[in-house]
Amino acid sequence: MPAPIDPADLTARLIRCPSVTPEEGGALGLLQEMLEEAGFDCTRVPRGGIDNLFARWGDRGAAKSFGFNGHTDVVPVGNRDDWSFDPFGAEEKDGQLYGRGACDMKSGVAAFAAAAIDFVRTTPPEGAVILTITGDEEGDGIDGTAALLDWMDETGEKMDVCLVGEPTCPETFGEMIKIGRRGSMNAHLTVTGTQGHSAYPHRANNPIPAMARLVDRLSSHELDQGTEHFDASTLAVVTIDTGNPATNVIPRQCRATLNIRFNDLHSGASLTEWLQAETRWVTEEFGVGIDMQVKVSGEAFLTPPGRLSQLVSQAVEAETGTLPVLSTTGGTSDARFVKAHCPVVEFGLVGQTMHQVDERVEVDQIHRLKSVYGRILKDYFA
Amino acid sequence: MPAPIDPADLTARLIRCPSVTPEEGGALGLLQEMLEEAGFDCTRVPRGGIDNLFARWGDRGAAKSFGFNGHTDVVPVGNRDDWSFDPFGAEEKDGQLYGRGACDMKSGVAAFAAAAIDFVRTTPPEGAVILTITGDEEGDGIDGTAALLDWMDETGEKMDVCLVGEPTCPETFGEMIKIGRRGSMNAHLTVTGTQGHSAYPHRANNPIPAMARLVDRLSSHELDQGTEHFDASTLAVVTIDTGNPATNVIPRQCRATLNIRFNDLHSGASLTEWLQAETRWVTEEFGVGIDMQVKVSGEAFLTPPGRLSQLVSQAVEAETGTLPVLSTTGGTSDARFVKAHCPVVEFGLVGQTMHQVDERVEVDQIHRLKSVYGRILKDYFA
Ligand SMILES: [Zn+2]
Ligand SMILES: [Zn+2]
Repeated sequence: MPAPIDPADLTARLIRCPSVTPEEGGALGLLQEMLEEAGFDCTRVPRGGIDNLFARWGDRGAAKSFGFNGHTDVVPVGNRDDWSFDPFGAEEKDGQLYGRGACDMKSGVAAFAAAAIDFVRTTPPEGAVILTITGDEEGDGIDGTAALLDWMDETGEKMDVCLVGEPTCPETFGEMIKIGRRGSMNAHLTVTGTQGHSAYPHRANNPIPAMARLVDRLSSHELDQGTEHFDASTLAVVTIDTGNPATNVIPRQCRATLNIRFNDLHSGASLTEWLQAETRWVTEEFGVGIDMQVKVSGEAFLTPPGRLSQLVSQAVEAETGTLPVLSTTGGTSDARFVKAHCPVVEFGLVGQTMHQVDERVEVDQIHRLKSVYGRILKDYFA
Repeated sequence: MPAPIDPADLTARLIRCPSVTPEEGGALGLLQEMLEEAGFDCTRVPRGGIDNLFARWGDRGAAKSFGFNGHTDVVPVGNRDDWSFDPFGAEEKDGQLYGRGACDMKSGVAAFAAAAIDFVRTTPPEGAVILTITGDEEGDGIDGTAALLDWMDETGEKMDVCLVGEPTCPETFGEMIKIGRRGSMNAHLTVTGTQGHSAYPHRANNPIPAMARLVDRLSSHELDQGTEHFDASTLAVVTIDTGNPATNVIPRQCRATLNIRFNDLHSGASLTEWLQAETRWVTEEFGVGIDMQVKVSGEAFLTPPGRLSQLVSQAVEAETGTLPVLSTTGGTSDARFVKAHCPVVEFGLVGQTMHQVDERVEVDQIHRLKSVYGRILKDYFA
């Protein structure tokens, strides 16, 4: 029997693979080699210049299958001079492992890969353990988990449930599981009037007052007060820009961008309809033209509290002594794609330094995360 | 007796002097030479890197003195490739003279210089004819006419009345005299909130809704409905800018600039007070910080209809057949400085191409303008 996999050592080796989206950087190759050695059936699923890894232990048609999902791609390092350590060096200091991807989420991938390998070696289950690991979570996302799921549908691969290993804990390890996420959408607005001289505003039609009224109306509107499992939906106008340097000129156009995070009372389509009604109102009132480009990056989704969240909660409590809350806060994640395939929850480390300079992870937490994942597998197949 | 001065020829010679603010370009030198030859007492009044010309025919302490005011500096040519003619070539085609300054206002200066020289030569008046010609009208203005007037105060020089030769006619020569101008001021507003993630707006304080409300309030406010001699005051927000490219970030600051053109019901100080009250209201309502920088470029001023405007109107009607309207429209001019010294009105050419590519003037109009100025001098001293 081989020795158990050290998930902190595996995290360090993954950090040393410079896998900034869309580069694979050797990370998936490293995992594939270990997984194949442990008897996993591995398939690379490339799409649109992105590489992804599907790994299954057990039969394709198994009566029970448990899936993990994660990503090995990382965001750029930013200004390298701001880092105290080599962002791809995986240096350890005072119990912390430093590097890009240390918490988001090479540690999570290492923990579930190590837990899965140890589990199938020590207590081979009646069923299948599946790992879906992508290289496009930090990019557009469409050539990563979505591609893996498309390929699984085509080839008859199936997860009965799935655990996404993203960092989910705000401050203390074990305190939070995510059972859904709010949706997110952006709208780009361009108000067009008629340029003119600021001494003769009646000969022009300034787009700025129309934009101000529109932004005021949208910002003042309460979308809802939250639902059973979701916070209130929010709307943030993140920029208004004109770029007119001349104080004697009334500009022709003014642009704005807004971001909406919405709960299960709304959809991208229902919110788009509301925005269109608001722009029509302002168009009528001010006689301007308004162009709106909407991009829905994810609908709200929820895996209602039930067997899967209970399984994960109990394992977290058993290993950490903390009963985690079931939350739907935070930005969107690849769980939005998995949700269409099977029930999905997310549990991982404390994510405080993700995407930051000097991103790091507590080495001890990686070991504890592996223990949680191992217990989840054991309980699921028990 | 020397021949009459040809004002179109003089305009062409002035256009060939590249006197883009702050360059003198030879324009004042050319005028000084001609004026001295005709018996004018000339003084250069330099200030702040700008050259200005004071010229007086007659005695300093004369019982009656008539003044002209104008500028030889011009705005930059912009993109020279867009011009059909050399902007400093003074080429003539189809009765039009082309070049930077052709209408604003080398033609005006040429016309009053020619009229003044011919007048003192042919019918030497009982009194003084004064020309104040500056090189800083298109710049900040403070080292031009203001400097000349300061110098005149110090040295005991005095104009009883003054005619500014700026283009004043919107479409047809003779149709408009300016007896005042609205004031103009700019306010630069910076709203400061607290940066944050757009998924958690309650942890941030977005400055954009506060700015939108402020701009909406200011833009919706009616300052007045006009007065006997003035149009209604106007407020134009000319730009709002944030420069935030990240849709997941709530920005810290948002900036805007507004321009107010105000009539004699207001002053820069009264409007500043109103703006301050509005920003205080928004500060309270939204919990943001608001910084406001105000720059008053000119107060509203008026030379009420009376002897001077009547003198000019009658001369215009006699020469053009059109009774001009007395107007206070348009941007600010150096008349705002002269107003503190003596009654002032403005009359000049049609100004349609001023500051534009292919700036040009009808040659015939220059001759007619000289005739109007000549008649004004004759009638004034009659
Ligand atoms: Zn991640
Ligand atoms: Zn001018």
